[in-house]
Amino acid sequence: MSEANAVLIGKKPVMNYVLACITFFHGGAEEVNIKARGKAISRAIDVVEVVRRKFLPSVKVKAIAIGTDQVQPQDEEAQLSNVSTIEITLHR
Amino acid sequence: MSEANAVLIGKKPVMNYVLACITFFHGGAEEVNIKARGKAISRAIDVVEVVRRKFLPSVKVKAIAIGTDQVQPQDEEAQLSNVSTIEITLHR
Repeated sequence: MSEANAVLIGKKPVMNYVLACITFFHGGAEEVNIKARGKAISRAIDVVEVVRRKFLPSVKVKAIAIGTDQVQPQDEEAQLSNVSTIEITLHR
Repeated sequence: MSEANAVLIGKKPVMNYVLACITFFHGGAEEVNIKARGKAISRAIDVVEVVRRKFLPSVKVKAIAIGTDQVQPQDEEAQLSNVSTIEITLHR
């Protein structure tokens, strides 16, 4: 999948990421990929819902993919831990 | 969508919900619906990933739907607030 127009969801307020999505679409993007992992997944859904319902009703959810990433904890002797991921593709 | 075989994700440990899913499949279910809203959405993805990767590799994600529910806060004069929802359909 293309890495262009990706919005990586972190710990900032939802509206920051909503604005990032809108900026991509206003700049002419046909698709925007929203990516999150761990606890940020809930926020990613919030971002999608706010973009669709409040700002850009013509935007549709094209695809949702979930998966698992392996993460190396800061303590290097600790075991790899798994974190869930989500990638939502919006299309207008 | 059918309300049968639904697992509603709350605040319990992930393995509780994983066990609920496995129990449905071992009982003969062809499909299990995993539903969550708000911050429990991340846990719902964790449940799906653990079921698929650790216990039932033959289970596939058939569909993922996201949406918004309106919630009446306990203070009845407060405004309705929105909460994001997810419904993941697993199929074997």
